[in-house]
Amino acid sequence: MRPIQSMHQRPIHGGNRQWAADMAGIDLATILDFSASINPLGPPDSAIAAIQSHLRELNHYPDPAYIDLRQAIGNFHQLSPDWILAGNGVAELLTWVGRDLSQLKATVLFTPAFTDYDRALAAYDCQIERYPLILPSEDLQHIQIPSLIKVSDNQAKGILINNPHNPTGYLFTKDNLLPYLEQFALVVIDEAFMDFLPPEQQQSLIDLVPFYPNLVILRSLTKFYSLPGLRLGYAIAHPERLQRWQAWRDPWCVNALAVAAGIAVLSDQEFQQKTWTWLKTARAQLFTGLAAISGFKPLANAANYLLVQTEVAGSILQKELLQKEQILIRDCLSFPELGDRYFRVAVRLEHENQKLINALLL
Amino acid sequence: MRPIQSMHQRPIHGGNRQWAADMAGIDLATILDFSASINPLGPPDSAIAAIQSHLRELNHYPDPAYIDLRQAIGNFHQLSPDWILAGNGVAELLTWVGRDLSQLKATVLFTPAFTDYDRALAAYDCQIERYPLILPSEDLQHIQIPSLIKVSDNQAKGILINNPHNPTGYLFTKDNLLPYLEQFALVVIDEAFMDFLPPEQQQSLIDLVPFYPNLVILRSLTKFYSLPGLRLGYAIAHPERLQRWQAWRDPWCVNALAVAAGIAVLSDQEFQQKTWTWLKTARAQLFTGLAAISGFKPLANAANYLLVQTEVAGSILQKELLQKEQILIRDCLSFPELGDRYFRVAVRLEHENQKLINALLL
Repeated sequence: MRPIQSMHQRPIHGGNRQWAADMAGIDLATILDFSASINPLGPPDSAIAAIQSHLRELNHYPDPAYIDLRQAIGNFHQLSPDWILAGNGVAELLTWVGRDLSQLKATVLFTPAFTDYDRALAAYDCQIERYPLILPSEDLQHIQIPSLIKVSDNQAKGILINNPHNPTGYLFTKDNLLPYLEQFALVVIDEAFMDFLPPEQQQSLIDLVPFYPNLVILRSLTKFYSLPGLRLGYAIAHPERLQRWQAWRDPWCVNALAVAAGIAVLSDQEFQQKTWTWLKTARAQLFTGLAAISGFKPLANAANYLLVQTEVAGSILQKELLQKEQILIRDCLSFPELGDRYFRVAVRLEHENQKLINALLL
Repeated sequence: MRPIQSMHQRPIHGGNRQWAADMAGIDLATILDFSASINPLGPPDSAIAAIQSHLRELNHYPDPAYIDLRQAIGNFHQLSPDWILAGNGVAELLTWVGRDLSQLKATVLFTPAFTDYDRALAAYDCQIERYPLILPSEDLQHIQIPSLIKVSDNQAKGILINNPHNPTGYLFTKDNLLPYLEQFALVVIDEAFMDFLPPEQQQSLIDLVPFYPNLVILRSLTKFYSLPGLRLGYAIAHPERLQRWQAWRDPWCVNALAVAAGIAVLSDQEFQQKTWTWLKTARAQLFTGLAAISGFKPLANAANYLLVQTEVAGSILQKELLQKEQILIRDCLSFPELGDRYFRVAVRLEHENQKLINALLL
């Protein structure tokens, strides 16, 4: 019996298999997890090999300047490492984003928004202004970007957006976002899922960072490369901002195995190509399969997950799928704008997607 | 050629082999590192085995409640997991210590103090009151605990001490520290090196945490178990305080491999016993060897390192040892109270200690 089971309250993030196992009374290892939007092809062998070859060096501290890692990220983006700060996952970097945003009058969020934004903004008592991307009355297929152009005091505010957007999967174009760079005191674009798009389709603002000291880009290395247990992300922003963050946080926040894996995967072009090829087909398969089921309306998605409107309550579906099929989907109760009318599923391998579709057909 | 070598400024912490290699123009892998106070017997096989058996689960997020790890730590200390918060190393937990201390009028530090205290306190603009443990005029063998008993407004302040103290190695007894629990609004005891003492010699205040909501204990699992590259520490304090910290920080700050290794090493009694046996002998050997060299006066130390008073400037010794023998010692320039009159060395394996002694004899 788990002595402190009561600590496992309904999670506000995907990927909490321990909670799911406890709730359904099943073995954690048997769960097929559609709730965390992680690449099912990984981790790449290059990452595992890099980790294994560094196990015997764990008795040394990581280089606090993280020069080799930042150099590798810099090479990948054709940027100087001075503009790069590695983090213990994007979530750790969001903490310092929240602290910077707290210096402004308010932060604009497009809702529903990634749940950890609320944590990072509340940690430093940020004022939040929420603008809905989805209105209850609207057709899901036509997300409207809220009009902010007329708001006169944006200059005193920040804006925090993820692109592609989680949980809707909506992709803002560069042209959508460019005006914000002129309007807002601080523009933070969380591109945690951008690498799931083939390069020619990406809408990253990384190229603009050298021209806009008010622009911060966040990137993850653990969703695409399937290493969320390892924790690794990075920020791209003006060196002065990154040096300030570095002075606030502890000197060794990225572990040495994450460093080794990060350097390895950035040059693993075979894994990257394989992922783009898989995703195109598998996402279409899952979308078509779900759309064909009465009562479900999936939303077109640029990334590796689908938000699905449902006539049956998402939390009930979640519980039934877990108990009957050991399949875990992401309910949307932690997104107040979505609630039980939606659920979210990751795109997985085709036979796994089919298993989900079959389970939902029953 | 390293393109961003200039970023490697003189380090303020031990264990920065990259800086040392760059400075001396030698290969990083050849360095015998006495600058970081890490157990040379580790990492234990139990840790490496636990890490290896969890490599294929890196595609899952860590349990954000860290229940299994906190349960293992709780079992180790005979405490409820509610009183335990895991951290990405003690340094990450110091960030939140700093934030709590910033709510008070000032924080008392005994100096010289661990360099990362200054970072954590400055991050939240804490006022610092420094009380010297070592005065230039004093005999090193007689560290005096500063008298604070007469300071009338301690009730509005916090105090942050490490025990055993770094870099002096001085061990405060429980009786030394007890009065502070009544005097100060917040008492933080960083016991990062306490596990190097055999259980019967430890002076931990962990047992008192349930009775003092103003007491926080910090513990490391990466110095004794030789895993600083992995990052793992924990705080023991009142659940309300830990829940507040948890609400500030990101949900997955400890990586899944650190969780696995932490659980494994806590029950590795063989490694623990082996370490206590080694340290007693090896520390005496190193102390005696250094004390016998003209111009050096090592300070008695309860932990696994020695602070040494030196007639030759510490930074010059460091450079010479590195270039001639690939031995890295810790200069004390980052401790303003010590400067070039001291250096610090870890206790290592006996043949390594002898190599250091021989090099210093030349």
